Amino acid sequence: MFFEIDFNSDEAIYMQIRNQIILGIATSHFQEGDMLPSVRQMAENIGINMHTVNKAYTVLKQEGYVKVDRRKGAMIALDVDKMQALEDVRRDLQVTLAKASCKNISREEVHSLIDEIYEDYQKGMDY
Amino acid sequence: MFFEIDFNSDEAIYMQIRNQIILGIATSHFQEGDMLPSVRQMAENIGINMHTVNKAYTVLKQEGYVKVDRRKGAMIALDVDKMQALEDVRRDLQVTLAKASCKNISREEVHSLIDEIYEDYQKGMDY
Repeated sequence: MFFEIDFNSDEAIYMQIRNQIILGIATSHFQEGDMLPSVRQMAENIGINMHTVNKAYTVLKQEGYVKVDRRKGAMIALDVDKMQALEDVRRDLQVTLAKASCKNISREEVHSLIDEIYEDYQKGMDY
Repeated sequence: MFFEIDFNSDEAIYMQIRNQIILGIATSHFQEGDMLPSVRQMAENIGINMHTVNKAYTVLKQEGYVKVDRRKGAMIALDVDKMQALEDVRRDLQVTLAKASCKNISREEVHSLIDEIYEDYQKGMDY
């Protein structure tokens, strides 16, 4: 999987890496048990500090997407705490829907966007 | 409006402030033309660096939620570039829906969450 980092983004680089790995899991680029690149390798490929990659992996571990073994490295391992996940997704959606309503995007438009994204996933589109 | 900052969150403090102001606009706590607290006042109230508040206001300005006047300060002023907003909302939703699907939250559950959030907004609930 190819990581695309926007160095001009307001979003922290470790969050961009974390988001792309989550998108990679949702689109089956990464599957349960797959190893992620080593911290050193990922840092070299992207041209960033190892500390930044480490932070991304630590967040993914805390959020239940990967397990980290000191010797083997980081492996995709989904820990599904559904109640916690529903809370997290609800909080994300609250901010996104607030943005949408400030910018005159209607409830119907949001529902349509969601259907479009799910249909793209099903077609296996790359993000 | 009361700002609630989670100093233990993975989310940067300036992004928490930015999100709360966007939520405040969506829930009519802030309206077009309202002045935001001065950078100094907000920094003192929350107990953070003025630089952090400045960064939040700068992002809100770039994203078209506020205008900043050097003397008067920051004022709510919505600049609705709907095409850009649809792109931003779509990108946010892609990450959120990827999270949801990694955690076994279904498309139907996402649509329901969205309806719940909109109904909360209509009831004027506080976030």
